[in-house]
Amino acid sequence: MARMKMPDVQNHRVPDNYRLTRVGVTGVKKPVQVVRGGRTVTLMPTISLFVDLPAKQRGSHMSRNLEVVAELVDESVCRPQPSLEDLCATLSRGLLDKHGYATTAEVEMRADYFLEMKNPSGRKTIEGYHLLARAVAHRGARHLVRKSVGVEVVGMTVCPCAQETVRQFLSGEGRRVRRRGTEPPLLSHNQRNVTSVLIEVPEKYAVEADDLIRLVEASQSSPTREILKRPDEGRLVLFAHLNPKFVEDVVRDVLRNIVEKYQALPDEVAVTVRSEAQESIHKHNAVAERVTTLGELRRSRAGPGFDRKSCA
Amino acid sequence: MARMKMPDVQNHRVPDNYRLTRVGVTGVKKPVQVVRGGRTVTLMPTISLFVDLPAKQRGSHMSRNLEVVAELVDESVCRPQPSLEDLCATLSRGLLDKHGYATTAEVEMRADYFLEMKNPSGRKTIEGYHLLARAVAHRGARHLVRKSVGVEVVGMTVCPCAQETVRQFLSGEGRRVRRRGTEPPLLSHNQRNVTSVLIEVPEKYAVEADDLIRLVEASQSSPTREILKRPDEGRLVLFAHLNPKFVEDVVRDVLRNIVEKYQALPDEVAVTVRSEAQESIHKHNAVAERVTTLGELRRSRAGPGFDRKSCA
Amino acid sequence: MARMKMPDVQNHRVPDNYRLTRVGVTGVKKPVQVVRGGRTVTLMPTISLFVDLPAKQRGSHMSRNLEVVAELVDESVCRPQPSLEDLCATLSRGLLDKHGYATTAEVEMRADYFLEMKNPSGRKTIEGYHLLARAVAHRGARHLVRKSVGVEVVGMTVCPCAQETVRQFLSGEGRRVRRRGTEPPLLSHNQRNVTSVLIEVPEKYAVEADDLIRLVEASQSSPTREILKRPDEGRLVLFAHLNPKFVEDVVRDVLRNIVEKYQALPDEVAVTVRSEAQESIHKHNAVAERVTTLGELRRSRAGPGFDRKSCA
Amino acid sequence: MARMKMPDVQNHRVPDNYRLTRVGVTGVKKPVQVVRGGRTVTLMPTISLFVDLPAKQRGSHMSRNLEVVAELVDESVCRPQPSLEDLCATLSRGLLDKHGYATTAEVEMRADYFLEMKNPSGRKTIEGYHLLARAVAHRGARHLVRKSVGVEVVGMTVCPCAQETVRQFLSGEGRRVRRRGTEPPLLSHNQRNVTSVLIEVPEKYAVEADDLIRLVEASQSSPTREILKRPDEGRLVLFAHLNPKFVEDVVRDVLRNIVEKYQALPDEVAVTVRSEAQESIHKHNAVAERVTTLGELRRSRAGPGFDRKSCA
Repeated sequence: MARMKMPDVQNHRVPDNYRLTRVGVTGVKKPVQVVRGGRTVTLMPTISLFVDLPAKQRGSHMSRNLEVVAELVDESVCRPQPSLEDLCATLSRGLLDKHGYATTAEVEMRADYFLEMKNPSGRKTIEGYHLLARAVAHRGARHLVRKSVGVEVVGMTVCPCAQETVRQFLSGEGRRVRRRGTEPPLLSHNQRNVTSVLIEVPEKYAVEADDLIRLVEASQSSPTREILKRPDEGRLVLFAHLNPKFVEDVVRDVLRNIVEKYQALPDEVAVTVRSEAQESIHKHNAVAERVTTLGELRRSRAGPGFDRKSCA
Repeated sequence: MARMKMPDVQNHRVPDNYRLTRVGVTGVKKPVQVVRGGRTVTLMPTISLFVDLPAKQRGSHMSRNLEVVAELVDESVCRPQPSLEDLCATLSRGLLDKHGYATTAEVEMRADYFLEMKNPSGRKTIEGYHLLARAVAHRGARHLVRKSVGVEVVGMTVCPCAQETVRQFLSGEGRRVRRRGTEPPLLSHNQRNVTSVLIEVPEKYAVEADDLIRLVEASQSSPTREILKRPDEGRLVLFAHLNPKFVEDVVRDVLRNIVEKYQALPDEVAVTVRSEAQESIHKHNAVAERVTTLGELRRSRAGPGFDRKSCA
Repeated sequence: MARMKMPDVQNHRVPDNYRLTRVGVTGVKKPVQVVRGGRTVTLMPTISLFVDLPAKQRGSHMSRNLEVVAELVDESVCRPQPSLEDLCATLSRGLLDKHGYATTAEVEMRADYFLEMKNPSGRKTIEGYHLLARAVAHRGARHLVRKSVGVEVVGMTVCPCAQETVRQFLSGEGRRVRRRGTEPPLLSHNQRNVTSVLIEVPEKYAVEADDLIRLVEASQSSPTREILKRPDEGRLVLFAHLNPKFVEDVVRDVLRNIVEKYQALPDEVAVTVRSEAQESIHKHNAVAERVTTLGELRRSRAGPGFDRKSCA
Repeated sequence: MARMKMPDVQNHRVPDNYRLTRVGVTGVKKPVQVVRGGRTVTLMPTISLFVDLPAKQRGSHMSRNLEVVAELVDESVCRPQPSLEDLCATLSRGLLDKHGYATTAEVEMRADYFLEMKNPSGRKTIEGYHLLARAVAHRGARHLVRKSVGVEVVGMTVCPCAQETVRQFLSGEGRRVRRRGTEPPLLSHNQRNVTSVLIEVPEKYAVEADDLIRLVEASQSSPTREILKRPDEGRLVLFAHLNPKFVEDVVRDVLRNIVEKYQALPDEVAVTVRSEAQESIHKHNAVAERVTTLGELRRSRAGPGFDRKSCA
């Protein structure tokens, strides 16, 4: 059977058919090795891989997508890549090499990720996050690749509006009751908040996922921590209520922090920020989102935000 | 072909094989008509249907499960059933009739459900819940059927522990700071809470799902409402902070309310209560659960709970 | 308290901040009445509602989104809307009216839906689908609204490539073995396929969701049916194996069927088609997608596809 | 603040309240080190941890659950545990130590897992699975712990019934058409199958998850493989069609293989097997399940099954 020529149904010429925007596989899981901060880390991303399909080709050879993944994973054992987005870039180049008919290739990853953080009392804790990564390759002399790095961070938001209403209730006749130094901030509703950032990383630049995680945590009302003994819990809750934020505030503070931190990145860098609050007072969620570029953000000089230093 | 006798592979005798506990289908969706409070309501439950399989039979005729559903749905257009759990009971009897080899049949449903509730200010609002229903039939003279009715309710819990810690922080030297009448309760963390109840309904008794929903809402720190204009939001948040509850408290208050409300139900009635808090200060959830009977609950006379009258 | 003026934290002026692309709510569930084919149908869509937020406004008044929904639902009891996409359009106009600062509004819905179909033997069966709907409104004299209608259909695909390989294996020396009239088609792997279409509906035109469902079912290897007694099951399986299709074929056949059926629709109409196969031979899925316009499709005259008449 | 005595709200005595069956946390994620086959493997399980709560205690100190996890994870870096179920056992003992009021503790884990397998042609491939693990500890002299190991395996099933019906169609007048050596098996519908096993591991015994994975793959119609070039794909599809199986057959073959392989395990060992087929011809799934003990299985001597040697 080894000598028998297999029919290549995918290669069947179908004259005058429709080209397809994306053809590929989703839900591929693979353990990969990535070097982060000097140490090799195992990640288990869920991967999607696509190429476009020209009008004259019936099917995409999807097993080649899996071969590209398998080769890279084998290689990563010996030569770990510096980041998930670099893995995506390498895979997208590999896809163009294997699919001669394709003009673009697209690879996306999402992986559990863990960082050592600190509780309000300074105690170490391992916290869970998600890494996001993406690369799009366009066929050319050396395949132009645009890669993006992202994170998804679970934190906490305290509603500024309900806090203000409670203040109003308390003051009785509508005068503004100001908090004195010895008093705790007023109560409000607060909830789990999921905020994600995806930012382009041009060639020769590096954007660290760990930095993005810290930047997002600093933009929520408070980070969440796994172990909170009573005093820690009290401090975190107080801290969050001193930083009440709408999802709109979270997105804008992330944008402001990105503009400030990545001053070396060029104007055309794409930035997407999304914040979703799993409202404690509603059955539905609240969402705010901005899809933009660094240049656009820089041209609209934003005023001071709702930022504060640090919870820990 | 109509005359041709089809082979019945499922009926193949497999001497000395293992009997199976449950064989059937899951993820069946069907619109059904149910009469609730005088009016006919359309529900779209997701349904699972199982029978057991004796050692001598190779396969269960699963298409019969779907026929039982189809017949009942056709019938329900003309003769709507009084409840989802009655539907389950009828289906479980139908399964035993169609699967002559089975000794037990089991049907489960879960459906979106909507009730008109009130905001703190008395304004009407349509709130979403889940109905749960279940029936298990045992073959016999007229098929003994045990049916259960349940609900899943999204509400809010305020943490009593963090509130107490904040009080402690505030008081300085550890003495208990008591709230005066003019002051709002102290802040805490609060979050989305999902609490479910499943309770057996013996023959000749009726347990109303609407009552269970109200009973669960009265056991959480506060219900959630879809539309909350500012004063409503403020009142609901204040109300919840006056009723701080652990998930443990929610489960116990639901149990207490059930014991009080369903005094006519016999001791052997099975009761399951589960409460899950999507913690705002953690990335994980907190859960409390009790699987018990009314008799067991009655024998352990519980003291007063954390109940209060009503939010609306 | 009724007389007290509430603080409007969302209206706080934040000079020189970033504008936001989308701010709103997701996961809203509501029962709505829609008139379809003369009869009133209850649907329970999950709804998202967004507006954009200008740089000068701190927060969006999200409770207004829910008020727009509540008002429409109340109204729909008396005056059912003709379709989900018309509901979306009305809601998006309502959002612009309530959010004076917004320039665009966006509403999306997804709902379970049921249609009476036929088995291969002609027997009636209620099959489940998903309806998709969307509307985007731009502020103007009478708010330009672009609405879209869509469906998601679960069917079956048989792999053409494996079938050809089996033919090759069988023929021994590589010659093409052709199926004779009395023989069944050769075996292959086949799997659950989920295909979705979203198509724009310009003012004064109507695209029926029921038609789209039938069009997609005719583009898969075979539709799936809930009740299949043995002869029906055999016919459906044979039928599917006579229509082997890649996900690429499914997308192209849907596109071809759309071009053919909607000749009256203008060139600028946006069309998105996506087909995902939950591969039986792999743990991952295969996907094909095309994002395009009717004009683009018309200009690339596609040849004959893999279509066939009908399974039932 | 370090000196200040924090109030212990959870310890509040609530005389005469209801005891709770399970109180704890779900959705905890942590990277852990496990030694498997001589090499240290990183796993990222999702963990649930529960204890029971007596009537006299208001709340469970849930942060202790997280401390138990954190300590073990820290320790596992230096001293990797031999398996996930051993981790569960150690955690359950730790829970009893930290929660003095609890009489039982329960820990569950689920983790992505990867094994090097072979394609039909012998080519190596990394395949993804899920590991399941569980331990229940009862307070006593040295805490009696019952631990269980499990796996979830995605494979493929080919329907025996549709294959037989096609044979019947083909034979015309109802006579049995037998496959000759040169002919491929007849077509049928086939689909993604998800089968899970959970089996108790008594003290001093070891059940290898890798063995369970192989045992389940040998009980499905065929395993699934990530990379299948055309001849591999053809062979796997042919192989599966020579091993048609209902979900009932899969469960019984797993049971038979377990009885055969684990002859040294005692009779009281609990065994749960579940197989779910994501039907290609239906929108719903088919499921078979058996909850039993090794003793019960041994007493019902099962006949020969539908087993075959190996696909690769």
